[in-house]
Amino acid sequence: MRVLVIGGDGYCGWATALYLSEHGHEVGIVDSLVRRHWDLTLGVDTLTPIAPPARRVARWKELTGREIALSVGDVCDYSFLRSAVERFGPEAIVHFGEQRSAPFSMMDREHAVLTQVNNVVGTLNLLYAMRELCPECHLVKLGSMGEYGTPNIDIEEGYITIQHNGREDRLPYPKQPGSFYHLSKVHDSHNIHFACKVWGLRATDLNQGVVYGVLTDQTAIDDVLINRLDYDGVFGTALNRFCIQAAIGYPLTVYGKGGQRRSFLDIRDTVRCIEIAITNPAGRGEFRVFNQFTEQFNVLELAQMVMRVGCENGLKVQIRHLANPRVENEEHYYNAKNTRLRDLGLEPHFLSDSLLDSLVRFAIRFKDRVDTTQILPQVTWR
Amino acid sequence: MRVLVIGGDGYCGWATALYLSEHGHEVGIVDSLVRRHWDLTLGVDTLTPIAPPARRVARWKELTGREIALSVGDVCDYSFLRSAVERFGPEAIVHFGEQRSAPFSMMDREHAVLTQVNNVVGTLNLLYAMRELCPECHLVKLGSMGEYGTPNIDIEEGYITIQHNGREDRLPYPKQPGSFYHLSKVHDSHNIHFACKVWGLRATDLNQGVVYGVLTDQTAIDDVLINRLDYDGVFGTALNRFCIQAAIGYPLTVYGKGGQRRSFLDIRDTVRCIEIAITNPAGRGEFRVFNQFTEQFNVLELAQMVMRVGCENGLKVQIRHLANPRVENEEHYYNAKNTRLRDLGLEPHFLSDSLLDSLVRFAIRFKDRVDTTQILPQVTWR
Repeated sequence: MRVLVIGGDGYCGWATALYLSEHGHEVGIVDSLVRRHWDLTLGVDTLTPIAPPARRVARWKELTGREIALSVGDVCDYSFLRSAVERFGPEAIVHFGEQRSAPFSMMDREHAVLTQVNNVVGTLNLLYAMRELCPECHLVKLGSMGEYGTPNIDIEEGYITIQHNGREDRLPYPKQPGSFYHLSKVHDSHNIHFACKVWGLRATDLNQGVVYGVLTDQTAIDDVLINRLDYDGVFGTALNRFCIQAAIGYPLTVYGKGGQRRSFLDIRDTVRCIEIAITNPAGRGEFRVFNQFTEQFNVLELAQMVMRVGCENGLKVQIRHLANPRVENEEHYYNAKNTRLRDLGLEPHFLSDSLLDSLVRFAIRFKDRVDTTQILPQVTWR
Repeated sequence: MRVLVIGGDGYCGWATALYLSEHGHEVGIVDSLVRRHWDLTLGVDTLTPIAPPARRVARWKELTGREIALSVGDVCDYSFLRSAVERFGPEAIVHFGEQRSAPFSMMDREHAVLTQVNNVVGTLNLLYAMRELCPECHLVKLGSMGEYGTPNIDIEEGYITIQHNGREDRLPYPKQPGSFYHLSKVHDSHNIHFACKVWGLRATDLNQGVVYGVLTDQTAIDDVLINRLDYDGVFGTALNRFCIQAAIGYPLTVYGKGGQRRSFLDIRDTVRCIEIAITNPAGRGEFRVFNQFTEQFNVLELAQMVMRVGCENGLKVQIRHLANPRVENEEHYYNAKNTRLRDLGLEPHFLSDSLLDSLVRFAIRFKDRVDTTQILPQVTWR
């Protein structure tokens, strides 16, 4: 299939682009590279030395003979997006091209507005471009499990059947997102749902959990293909950050009690989930929602697993509880469904000691690149 | 109370500002006047000859001795908004200052993006300004009954208690908005809810039905105070438009079968609902939702009522069914709750023949101002 990966220079996007390319799909990448720019402006950096995007795709071609078309530009610029879509002629568009950090969106008013305008306008533009140029194309949009918040009932996949006063309807699952970033994803979901209804577009919203890991079969074959790995207080996420902290002898920073239960998946499952979604497209007019994760853990539980694996590797690992910079429940019910991708063939890589072991060792290889002043959270929600 | 009315030059905003001023509140108006500009660019106009904003408030002062502070500027411009809020020091902010037309938002990509960015950024700015300058202030935000769509179960006021797999939670009521405009209101509701939770702000979201009527006790006292009344295909709404069509002998334009059931209220109840909300503020951290309407009607039912009243006045009135420019169910279940404002003291002006009669007569007075080429809907949803 012809698949356009928007945000294909990012952590999930790059891994996805290579995976789909290796599996015989015709892949194009659209990316504004603004994420690399944000890193610069914030003074943070990926643990891994990532190559410039053109060098990445050139190396992929040298090693595999497979071509990936790279378009550098911003999906918020409609004339750019329009011509990129028209030129490539996608059968599926995978949309990772959004500001994806909750702390970034909570820094101040400017970052909240930037996040919501960037994400909402980019997705609106994409919907209009599809309507205009390729109404049969399938949009695979990255949402977030964080859209749901932590309701006191089971989390279903996008919709819930509600009985009320003797009547019944299947309605969009109520959302309680916990940051202006997560809110932007909720806004997107509503906009896409509507576009499917009125224009007959087809879309799959992938409410993804927290992704961990770094190596995939494709990014592992050469250092020029290496993927980004964030550990800083703005873009770093729980499990990856813990492994890097363990590698450098920095205490694992658990926010509050660590009882926050969340959904997680291995990056090798992210890329497979995308392939499953594009090869099993939604119908015309269908707004389909999959919860894209494989397991649920408490944050403290994860820190303890990393501590154990680190200690087995001879590292000194401590856990430090920080005052929680976020506003969130630290003890709550959490039970989310994730059967739809499994039903379509996903065979999960469950979290294992060997994965943690390899991730810690990987982090040790690059530990001299760590800037320890960037680890602690500096953005608070209040 | 010191009440800042954002969008105070508009149909609901102007009526509200005068009502609150007459009832002893200290009123300020903030308005960018962009709505008058949009009318110009679209070539449409209010039926009534509205005076310039400064002349309006000067005349109000001459007639009543009451001062209304007028600030002309855009809430999307944070430095303007910040200084307007700081200068006025409001105890309540009533936020009408949004693009409020569904057809306007559906004209094309540019109008969809304009609507969502304008409405979402304006409200985000307001939340940040309140957090920074007046965290005790009460935000009274105009939402829309159209946020709910037409679910097959009763519509509650903002929240619904859901039993699911043996557990229970009270969650935000699922939203199924029917235009990019209505979507912008849903985005706002989610953003405001979150700001109340993390910053302890207090807010009331008024999900208002379709407003009809034009005269209030205040706008009626002088022609310079006259309120706007829209009948065009972009800004006109069902009942008001029917009365104007009846007045000029133009067939009442019903979209599709006319079985669309909606919520309605008299503009004299709008202004009273706002007063009820501000004098009974939400608590710190509370995001409160009231459904602001008094009655439910089918569109065809309303057209038939106007036809009857028109005929009694010797007018020739016909009903014409147009192909529906919108994507919406023309037959559906609809039962929305509206007890919370009643419980706080609202005594509704129910729709009566005498109101329709006076509205038709009012329209006859200005019928020479009607541009009949602007009546039909020119924007389609598909």
